[in-house]
Amino acid sequence: MSRERLYIYDTTLRDGQQTQGVSFSMHEKVQIARRLDALGVDYIEGGWPGANPTDSAFFDEAPQTRAMMTAFGMTKRAGRSAQNDEVLAAVLNAGTGAVCLVGKTHDFHVTTALGISLNENTENIQASIAHVVAEGREALFDAEHFFDGWTANRDYALEALKAAHEAGARWIVLCDTNGGTLPAEIGRITAEVIAAGIPGDRLGIHTHNDTENAVAGSLAAIEAGARQVQGTLNGLGERCGNANLTALIPTLLLKEPYASRYETGITREALTGITQASRMLDEILNRVPMKQAAYVGASAFAHKAGLHASAILKDPTTYEHVDPGDVGNARVIPMSNQAGQSNLRRRLSEAGLVVDKGDPALARILEQIKLQEERGYTYDSAQASFELLARRELGQLPRFFEVKRYKVTVERRKNKYDQMVSLSEAVVVVKVDGEKKLSVSESMDEQGNDRGPVNALAKALAKDLGRYQDAIDDMRLVDFKVRITQGGTEAVTRVIIDSQDGQGRRWSTVGVSANIVDASFEALLDAITWKLLRDGFAK
Amino acid sequence: MSRERLYIYDTTLRDGQQTQGVSFSMHEKVQIARRLDALGVDYIEGGWPGANPTDSAFFDEAPQTRAMMTAFGMTKRAGRSAQNDEVLAAVLNAGTGAVCLVGKTHDFHVTTALGISLNENTENIQASIAHVVAEGREALFDAEHFFDGWTANRDYALEALKAAHEAGARWIVLCDTNGGTLPAEIGRITAEVIAAGIPGDRLGIHTHNDTENAVAGSLAAIEAGARQVQGTLNGLGERCGNANLTALIPTLLLKEPYASRYETGITREALTGITQASRMLDEILNRVPMKQAAYVGASAFAHKAGLHASAILKDPTTYEHVDPGDVGNARVIPMSNQAGQSNLRRRLSEAGLVVDKGDPALARILEQIKLQEERGYTYDSAQASFELLARRELGQLPRFFEVKRYKVTVERRKNKYDQMVSLSEAVVVVKVDGEKKLSVSESMDEQGNDRGPVNALAKALAKDLGRYQDAIDDMRLVDFKVRITQGGTEAVTRVIIDSQDGQGRRWSTVGVSANIVDASFEALLDAITWKLLRDGFAK
Repeated sequence: MSRERLYIYDTTLRDGQQTQGVSFSMHEKVQIARRLDALGVDYIEGGWPGANPTDSAFFDEAPQTRAMMTAFGMTKRAGRSAQNDEVLAAVLNAGTGAVCLVGKTHDFHVTTALGISLNENTENIQASIAHVVAEGREALFDAEHFFDGWTANRDYALEALKAAHEAGARWIVLCDTNGGTLPAEIGRITAEVIAAGIPGDRLGIHTHNDTENAVAGSLAAIEAGARQVQGTLNGLGERCGNANLTALIPTLLLKEPYASRYETGITREALTGITQASRMLDEILNRVPMKQAAYVGASAFAHKAGLHASAILKDPTTYEHVDPGDVGNARVIPMSNQAGQSNLRRRLSEAGLVVDKGDPALARILEQIKLQEERGYTYDSAQASFELLARRELGQLPRFFEVKRYKVTVERRKNKYDQMVSLSEAVVVVKVDGEKKLSVSESMDEQGNDRGPVNALAKALAKDLGRYQDAIDDMRLVDFKVRITQGGTEAVTRVIIDSQDGQGRRWSTVGVSANIVDASFEALLDAITWKLLRDGFAK
Repeated sequence: MSRERLYIYDTTLRDGQQTQGVSFSMHEKVQIARRLDALGVDYIEGGWPGANPTDSAFFDEAPQTRAMMTAFGMTKRAGRSAQNDEVLAAVLNAGTGAVCLVGKTHDFHVTTALGISLNENTENIQASIAHVVAEGREALFDAEHFFDGWTANRDYALEALKAAHEAGARWIVLCDTNGGTLPAEIGRITAEVIAAGIPGDRLGIHTHNDTENAVAGSLAAIEAGARQVQGTLNGLGERCGNANLTALIPTLLLKEPYASRYETGITREALTGITQASRMLDEILNRVPMKQAAYVGASAFAHKAGLHASAILKDPTTYEHVDPGDVGNARVIPMSNQAGQSNLRRRLSEAGLVVDKGDPALARILEQIKLQEERGYTYDSAQASFELLARRELGQLPRFFEVKRYKVTVERRKNKYDQMVSLSEAVVVVKVDGEKKLSVSESMDEQGNDRGPVNALAKALAKDLGRYQDAIDDMRLVDFKVRITQGGTEAVTRVIIDSQDGQGRRWSTVGVSANIVDASFEALLDAITWKLLRDGFAK
């Protein structure tokens, strides 16, 4: 059976930029466009040329892409010709192969928001699309508030679509602009539009996630016959976001009935890059990646429940609907007090530690984990500390250096300008290769700002570690989470530190103490030890 | 037209706890159960008694709820009677009105994961449900992997359901355990099950979000006839989470065709508490609330695009599919003080501060909040600090005492028994009623344990405050949350402290600094100031 072509239209750079707090630089837009092109989307909507300087600059510098670069704008305003509308001219001047113009199809919006007659609006759509086509570009029409419009005044909504269609628009995109239309209704209305004479292979779907149904709404439109689907990486977008392409694309490529029905521009090989593409966007936005994200989240294939974890070990298909490797993600079986020895062996082998079934060390490690968890530790999200705990029980943990003592002072007082200022100072004494080393650091950074006692301590600890210095200098603390938890009968502080190195490794360690400085220090020590192990140091 | 009853089943405390990194304390479980009950869900699944000590303790201490408290467990194992299965006995011993037992309905899982015959499995289901019913409890059967099972071997899957149904199960819950079934298929199969003889008003739906379709899958099953829907607050749950009740419930109550078709136990008034319920859970988990969350996210009604924001001012229905007030959320229009000021006046009056419309202090307070939020502060969960900020701008904040300086030392070294031990010491200098007072405290508690630098500082600060001493002695720190956040261009530490006093008041304050000790100190000072205000002190 030959498969039908389904087109993927990405609007991360345009609608995605409407997210609260998001504003891409030109360089970031170029970086994202390159990644989208490598993934194999069919269209990249780069922005609205003329609407802001970054979008205009992006089109000037836009990378060569296999994907069709698309400029976004709006249909011409009433009372002037398409040729004489300077907003439309700026969009065309970006010189992209495709141009997507948004216009009204909901009568209420035409009269309330625009304040023009329905006929004027139809004529604006027709003239604008015809102008784009006459300029030799591929034209797309974004039918704003289409589903509400169809429900309110079907005749007018259809008239607006037909104006765009007959003027030569390659695609008519049905937009659920306020995100309020539920999937079943999107499917029904899309089918009605096709029955009314707009062919499905000319129809696109653009949904928002205001009821958490953007992906499902897109699928419903595809099932009804639409052949272009719009969305953004990580579901970026105004309010609750747009349809999430990092969820939609794997579903279309891996799940039935879609996989055998449709062909997209994205290969199965390129699909393995989608987890990385998602993380790259978070990296640019300085966001913590969403662990629970479908397909690409760090927890998407994490099996915690004891029953699930033991079945997964027998056969991964028992609790996984797709292979994590297909989307470039990985299976995680976290340690927990429900986990048994077989889970443990599996986790150990992932850390490169092969332990025979029945080895008495396994029971000791489990016992140790249980004791530590009772004290307030958690190893679900601190895999590196888990590995060190296991190595300790297995006698495979080198002691690279020894901390003899430390002292940290935090002081707050008035400076000579009568302002309250703080400063911390840390002294750390370590023994490395038989040599005792005293280091002192303060918490002031290069800008003269106090970074606090943990910062001073981390700097003092990393200051002079002899032959390990290069490895230590290559790592940095990227996240730091603190929580008060119950350890035994007393409240204790649990610190989780995420570290990263120049080779792109990222690892998490945990420390627990009633004293937050102590807890942080313990997690720091684990982070350094893990890094030295991975860099191949032995003692 | 009379509406059909639709039942909401919450499993935040059981399946939600399968989230990576989540582990509720008994106290937290009680707190969440109370909130769910206030919301009006029909069932609260509290955990698996016998599986871990916290779940068992929760049922011992479970609050009285209007909702049906439900214990979770699994069907009896083969080779013993239901009466003699101690796992099942532990579940029944929790003494809940309802018991939900999970069992297999997918032939592959029966033979691969359980390693028993299909007949043995059917008999386990039948005997277990019959036993629960004979004990006078409402019985629910969770049909694990049901949709895959139905596709693989429809006859067996139906036989398993019928065994539970005929044994007297009030509800047969169709579970898409691995989250791989898409909404259209869930709808189709649910309809087939009803056609095969299990009535829809006996059917529940339990979905997971592995393709980002858990909400849509639940809606599809309801449309096909299922009358119980399961999910969790904020979509907590293993891997990508369960169906998100904070999205599903507003859709069922506010959106058509559901609103006029179904009646739930949740009133429109209780629905206005759902945003707070969502934030409370994040607070307990020390998670940053998801801004883009449908209905309850801080960005869910934020209008950034210029065109949208100006249309919203003309008529909110232009870009909002529901009224944000219906879910206890609020519209956000950046750059618009108009919407901001009326919100602010509402919050001030909640704190007992009546400010006239148009008072210029309102604009100053909004500006101050904006500046502070840019520095990393948050006032959503620190109402007491918000009140102090507003009082400062209104000239209604007494200065009870002045902190001149402090110094904290944290030291870790070997004691005389060659053990590493820590000790912190704090010196605080305050001026009260013109008198300078020096206080020193250390972090050692009565049991000889080090409680850390913040503890030493809090003790020194509270040690000698003159005429305020009785009020201060009456308060204690009950929770302490720390998060690294972005303040301007640098990462800073945000500390939120919850305090409580002898009159049962509980209040939250916030401090922000790159230095965690400073941030804690700031939050402590706010906590004391708020307490002195409430106790009626004036300066």
